[in-house]
Amino acid sequence: MPRTKGNHEARRRDVSEAVWRVLVAHGFGGLTMRAVAAELDATTGLLTHYFPAKRDLVAYALDLLERRSASRPRRAAGKGLSAVRAALLDILPLTDEATDSNRIWVSSWDAALANPELSDDYARKYAKSREKLRDLVAAAQQLGELPDGDPARIAAGAQSFVLGLVVQALFDPPAFPSHRQAELLDDYLATLNSPPSSGGDHEILS
Amino acid sequence: MPRTKGNHEARRRDVSEAVWRVLVAHGFGGLTMRAVAAELDATTGLLTHYFPAKRDLVAYALDLLERRSASRPRRAAGKGLSAVRAALLDILPLTDEATDSNRIWVSSWDAALANPELSDDYARKYAKSREKLRDLVAAAQQLGELPDGDPARIAAGAQSFVLGLVVQALFDPPAFPSHRQAELLDDYLATLNSPPSSGGDHEILS
Repeated sequence: MPRTKGNHEARRRDVSEAVWRVLVAHGFGGLTMRAVAAELDATTGLLTHYFPAKRDLVAYALDLLERRSASRPRRAAGKGLSAVRAALLDILPLTDEATDSNRIWVSSWDAALANPELSDDYARKYAKSREKLRDLVAAAQQLGELPDGDPARIAAGAQSFVLGLVVQALFDPPAFPSHRQAELLDDYLATLNSPPSSGGDHEILS
Repeated sequence: MPRTKGNHEARRRDVSEAVWRVLVAHGFGGLTMRAVAAELDATTGLLTHYFPAKRDLVAYALDLLERRSASRPRRAAGKGLSAVRAALLDILPLTDEATDSNRIWVSSWDAALANPELSDDYARKYAKSREKLRDLVAAAQQLGELPDGDPARIAAGAQSFVLGLVVQALFDPPAFPSHRQAELLDDYLATLNSPPSSGGDHEILS
């Protein structure tokens, strides 16, 4: 096959697909030159053309995950509380595609926590995501759809809620089908939206 | 050194400590015979005496994590809502020890998701943990310290909340010092404890 630009691009897409399938099936712990080559039905020799070393393959996979997440389809957001809800639903593993992507994110945490630079990068990523959520929460408060309170604190709580729901749903899909995940999120949003309870709490909680 | 039972036990403790330190620093992705041998200041040859193959080392590490988690100190629980709170605080990375342990749990998710048997085992573990929490929630409801509602559903939400908070705190300790984690948990429990809001929600949330 002549080495044209089109072929090169097609080959890069094939490589991306193969890396993605290996990550879905085996996670970062199972991401090896050999596994990707097998998915591509190619030799590991060909793979070293793309990834001279294992760390290049891992860097490529992390970048692929980032790009696919950034370009994933989002719900029409509306505004106020429904925008908060849409942003949180966009994170959950409600479809096969979102499940694959979340499974790879969770898998990447092991590598990320072991590498200070990558760990900082993840911390920034989650902080940025909390900031976006904070702005949506503040907008919902201005519309009177969420009660007063530090929007950053509410955003940190909401992000915790969905991240933990992602983990539980990945391990136990039968216990967390998509309608159940949405119900749990709606429970959470409904409690957020409740007027603060009066009396008793502080004694019990402090 | 004579091969006495005491020496054998001491050596096993040394091995456990070395495996633990490797997991804290490098996660399951960095758990190799070589890394454990280096921590022990021993040869990889000696290690194969304990772990004939890599998978034996991984199985040992998972078992060690399980045992250490099961035997970790717990807060005096009280009853009702304060028992729910204590159980949730026991999960969070509020101390160095709990941080190490959580870091290893999160790291283990990659391996667990890649292995159907292990994945089922984790699903059962989290289901059991939700059941315990459900019983605590039901007891708090009976005392009138939490409003009515399906206790299993409240437990699933609460477990999501703390698991996601664990992940965020591990990546960003400066943003989630222990007092902040406790505050966020108390915010969550306070909203749970609020009377259901009246009107508006269903229109917005459905």
